Amino acid sequence: MFVNRITTDDKTAELFTREADIQAMLRFELALAEAQAEEGVISADALGHLETKIAAFKPDYEALDAAFEIDGLVVPELVRQLRATLSDEFSRALHLGSTSQDVLDSSLMVRLCESEKIAVSRLGNLLARIAAMTEGREQAGLMAHTRMQAALPITLQQKTNNWIRGLEAAKASAVGSYPVQIGGPVGIWNDLDPRNPAVGKRVAKKLGLCWPGHAWHTDRAIILQIAHWYGQVAAAVAKIARDLLLMAQNEVAEAEALAGGTSSAMAHKKNPVVCEFVLAQAAHVQTLCAGLQHNMVHENERSGEKWTLEWILLPGIVMATGSTLLLGEKMLAGMKIKSGQ
Amino acid sequence: MFVNRITTDDKTAELFTREADIQAMLRFELALAEAQAEEGVISADALGHLETKIAAFKPDYEALDAAFEIDGLVVPELVRQLRATLSDEFSRALHLGSTSQDVLDSSLMVRLCESEKIAVSRLGNLLARIAAMTEGREQAGLMAHTRMQAALPITLQQKTNNWIRGLEAAKASAVGSYPVQIGGPVGIWNDLDPRNPAVGKRVAKKLGLCWPGHAWHTDRAIILQIAHWYGQVAAAVAKIARDLLLMAQNEVAEAEALAGGTSSAMAHKKNPVVCEFVLAQAAHVQTLCAGLQHNMVHENERSGEKWTLEWILLPGIVMATGSTLLLGEKMLAGMKIKSGQ
Amino acid sequence: MFVNRITTDDKTAELFTREADIQAMLRFELALAEAQAEEGVISADALGHLETKIAAFKPDYEALDAAFEIDGLVVPELVRQLRATLSDEFSRALHLGSTSQDVLDSSLMVRLCESEKIAVSRLGNLLARIAAMTEGREQAGLMAHTRMQAALPITLQQKTNNWIRGLEAAKASAVGSYPVQIGGPVGIWNDLDPRNPAVGKRVAKKLGLCWPGHAWHTDRAIILQIAHWYGQVAAAVAKIARDLLLMAQNEVAEAEALAGGTSSAMAHKKNPVVCEFVLAQAAHVQTLCAGLQHNMVHENERSGEKWTLEWILLPGIVMATGSTLLLGEKMLAGMKIKSGQ
Amino acid sequence: MFVNRITTDDKTAELFTREADIQAMLRFELALAEAQAEEGVISADALGHLETKIAAFKPDYEALDAAFEIDGLVVPELVRQLRATLSDEFSRALHLGSTSQDVLDSSLMVRLCESEKIAVSRLGNLLARIAAMTEGREQAGLMAHTRMQAALPITLQQKTNNWIRGLEAAKASAVGSYPVQIGGPVGIWNDLDPRNPAVGKRVAKKLGLCWPGHAWHTDRAIILQIAHWYGQVAAAVAKIARDLLLMAQNEVAEAEALAGGTSSAMAHKKNPVVCEFVLAQAAHVQTLCAGLQHNMVHENERSGEKWTLEWILLPGIVMATGSTLLLGEKMLAGMKIKSGQ
Repeated sequence: MFVNRITTDDKTAELFTREADIQAMLRFELALAEAQAEEGVISADALGHLETKIAAFKPDYEALDAAFEIDGLVVPELVRQLRATLSDEFSRALHLGSTSQDVLDSSLMVRLCESEKIAVSRLGNLLARIAAMTEGREQAGLMAHTRMQAALPITLQQKTNNWIRGLEAAKASAVGSYPVQIGGPVGIWNDLDPRNPAVGKRVAKKLGLCWPGHAWHTDRAIILQIAHWYGQVAAAVAKIARDLLLMAQNEVAEAEALAGGTSSAMAHKKNPVVCEFVLAQAAHVQTLCAGLQHNMVHENERSGEKWTLEWILLPGIVMATGSTLLLGEKMLAGMKIKSGQ
Repeated sequence: MFVNRITTDDKTAELFTREADIQAMLRFELALAEAQAEEGVISADALGHLETKIAAFKPDYEALDAAFEIDGLVVPELVRQLRATLSDEFSRALHLGSTSQDVLDSSLMVRLCESEKIAVSRLGNLLARIAAMTEGREQAGLMAHTRMQAALPITLQQKTNNWIRGLEAAKASAVGSYPVQIGGPVGIWNDLDPRNPAVGKRVAKKLGLCWPGHAWHTDRAIILQIAHWYGQVAAAVAKIARDLLLMAQNEVAEAEALAGGTSSAMAHKKNPVVCEFVLAQAAHVQTLCAGLQHNMVHENERSGEKWTLEWILLPGIVMATGSTLLLGEKMLAGMKIKSGQ
Repeated sequence: MFVNRITTDDKTAELFTREADIQAMLRFELALAEAQAEEGVISADALGHLETKIAAFKPDYEALDAAFEIDGLVVPELVRQLRATLSDEFSRALHLGSTSQDVLDSSLMVRLCESEKIAVSRLGNLLARIAAMTEGREQAGLMAHTRMQAALPITLQQKTNNWIRGLEAAKASAVGSYPVQIGGPVGIWNDLDPRNPAVGKRVAKKLGLCWPGHAWHTDRAIILQIAHWYGQVAAAVAKIARDLLLMAQNEVAEAEALAGGTSSAMAHKKNPVVCEFVLAQAAHVQTLCAGLQHNMVHENERSGEKWTLEWILLPGIVMATGSTLLLGEKMLAGMKIKSGQ
Repeated sequence: MFVNRITTDDKTAELFTREADIQAMLRFELALAEAQAEEGVISADALGHLETKIAAFKPDYEALDAAFEIDGLVVPELVRQLRATLSDEFSRALHLGSTSQDVLDSSLMVRLCESEKIAVSRLGNLLARIAAMTEGREQAGLMAHTRMQAALPITLQQKTNNWIRGLEAAKASAVGSYPVQIGGPVGIWNDLDPRNPAVGKRVAKKLGLCWPGHAWHTDRAIILQIAHWYGQVAAAVAKIARDLLLMAQNEVAEAEALAGGTSSAMAHKKNPVVCEFVLAQAAHVQTLCAGLQHNMVHENERSGEKWTLEWILLPGIVMATGSTLLLGEKMLAGMKIKSGQ
């Protein structure tokens, strides 16, 4: 679809490829083995063997794809492929005490750390663009509008302060700390071996994650917190788009699109289409967030149904927010604010 | 993402490629010219020229992509490319009186006719599978459950009647009649030339669409009706998945997965993962439908913002429903209902 | 809350009182007994006794309230109260073969017939107001706006045609036919007695409902169809509000609020608050509709959970749409469209 | 409606009455005057006069209601009523530099502080009930279920740990700090008088709120944070309900309803209706939260439309969560977990 041109963000999308997922899963398996060796759960020899074999491992993606459709997740097949490269002696040391959800959730968290950095950096870009747009004409006059009516004169600086605050607040609200998942088959990892909490802490540290103290197999508050953060980011960009779109009305004439927005029927038009793109794509983000809002209650000790929906919606939220931010930069570059000094 | 394996439906997705979109747009431009020639708005010579040139036209997709990002839609560039192949004399006869929204909305409707046929056919497949699953053991005994408690014995036929009715009702509710869009730059096509309504009727007929009597540039009730139909289809399939998932609980033991659902940690498990996939993917459909529910009010004479969001959400709804139906077939093929005769 | 002043519609709300609910339930029980007598399922004597006792019945609402909290519905207690007034001989003839869901769903449908009439009548009022507003100055000039930019001149009639079509389409899409619910304890009413389908048809006719041919205990497509219709109605009114709010911008000056909208700080302001009320209340309607979109799959032979949510959301949708329509009338009465002839 | 019996929470609802709203508004006006006197913006005499008159003030609610419908908010009329009791000399000292949104948003925040306390206290009640339910039989055996299949044995303590963590996490995530709103007519309060930020800090302290450093007239991230917190609370309670409902299936027999849930047709049934109520009411909360998710972008310097929708949805979220918590207590009191020691 042509619309994919505006809904895609290659850099963020790369974090959600099969390859990135598998690489993060392998990092988890390795970190787990290292931590277990450090706590004496597996031997140094076992760790050495695993390190060598994981480093040399070439996943068979076709088999992983096929297994996904049968098992609903790829971890059993991934572990099978890995174990096929191990000597029998050390086979058991891989994935020891762990379960698919530990691997998958942790892999996701590792990559969400990265996507947050991308988003925060783009928020910074937007702030820099606003600063540049405002510099030297902070006192330029605009009209404040409340309840869609002209209210009182304000300055360009005062107008953009509302945008800056939204972006700054989004930056300040970044999640920051992403939890490792280790719960074992039914979420009771901590109870299975007195060394397990220490192992958990070590795995978290190795992966740049935090140790939440226990499994969160069915407590998805963190998933919602992450989704809501992206919703806040998208809304902060959309606020600018909404204001610019209203300012760019011919009758208001406080802003204008520098180029683009050609009409097939009306040659005089220059539609501020990037503002519209930002608003549409931000609404897309909110739509997906609202879907997760209905998906919070994971039944029993693991919900395949609710978990699968997270895999569909959450990457969608992250990528759509990524493209909202890119569109936001393009919008600020392509709109001119008009005002008497 | 691995999850794409279950969220993708190649056959339906083909309808939403750039190529399918452009081909349907060209069909619209051609049908418009034919209808205008038949009503005497353009000459037979002009039509002849257009027919030849449209048939020979090779779109420059790279330029279309680039134009999309600048103009927010591809029609101005498409018309420009087409006109570049026309003699000056007949250039004006192309796209005459029309506007981008006419071309885009009509192209969408042409393809939604096709996607409905795919979905209806798959509903038929599901009904056939249920019939085969039931045949010869209609009276097999199951337990009805109301409010999550065992209620009274029912038969397999009575159990599946609820599924059949949902699928049949979805089939019977298919939209069936998709409207052509012709409104011109600001939606007042009918008022611009007394021959225009007749042209509109002819264009509709040529494209297998209906003539709604007027433009619907900002009246998007039909978009919602279409989305809601897919929502109904997805819910009808999800109803079967919900029941099978509950029946497949080990303690209930009225159904079981024939294969698959391996666990990385618990060798004895055979998780009914396809039921979960259906439920997750159907919830995805409802999530996107709920997003359109908030997008109904298109401001003024054309809303770029709300229209762009339709381009994102509606194909998503159609494709996710397509994959829900495919997963539904796979689910019924892979689940066995257990009951004493 | 003060906001209740705009979210309340007394006339529609009356249909959702406990009293209206119980009266419609009693109508159902009476119609069932009459139909069963006509088909020979119960005796004429039994019917005569029931008619007398139902006519004289005074519900104990306090006991009904208490029972609701214990049983999750009032029907068992209502039937108990009614049976306490019957002679032993005829006690069984009441509620014969029926179940709580039959009584509750049918009571709801009886009242939704009424609420549709109210809404359709108000759509007519809005159309009349638009006609009056337009009359005599159909050709008055306004500016069409597409993608938030001035496009081409149009007339007042052309502007309001978009509003009229949305309202007319909503009128034409009214559900019209509301189904009676009769399924018995587990939804297999038709299979329990060969006379039952005929009884069903008779009950439907007596209540002004249609006979859908079978129970729809778990097939809630009709619930969604009804909700979506109210969503369409609310959106049609909100379209007018959106346009008027944009036209009433001081810089556009195509409309103005005749009165109201005082500010506590800016004496010169006259905010078009009723347009905003319409938009907020219509968004409220869409919010509740989106909630039902996620509630379509009712598990097994009856879902207490999903059904209870319908009781919360659907009346909310109907009442919020009712108030949107009332606010729409107030809005049209309070806004003046300004344009040169 | 009978369903109001389970959707109502009188204690929380009291915070959202007109009376509670007006009282909090008067507290704001008084705090503002005190802070302005302390910073030398108004005189001590003016403050003394205001204190006396505000203390003696009797609002005319009928006039406030009427004004709401005309102005879209009550503050202009409230200020008018108050000023009518003041001497001309000190009239200007009331509401000085402030605007309706300052009064309304601050009044809301004052009351949301209170509703949070209620909710946190009820979370504590639920935790105490779980502790009591578990005490002395922590090691009682249950079956863990993953992906809706029996997995491995766990203990009652391990089962309830998932519930406890969700409730504890909700407690720990309480918003805690609610911001005062002071922005003046167009949100530039800080720029209007060098003493204003100090006034803001003082007002916040007097009202038990925090001073966010600037106006947040259009930056509604805090509104979403609050809504999301209630969503998290409701989901934490719903998690328990979902598990108990599945455990209470006759075939699973790990829990049972102690009483209630009578059926009108099946005397043997004892439906776990309170679990269903919790799930339905929690889904109601998520529905309203999802609505706010689409309402984040407030245009220009004040959005009447988006703000009005907050007034509708946010109190609904708080009250529905309040009742979810009450129902949760009732659910735990009425369900028995069955297991061999």
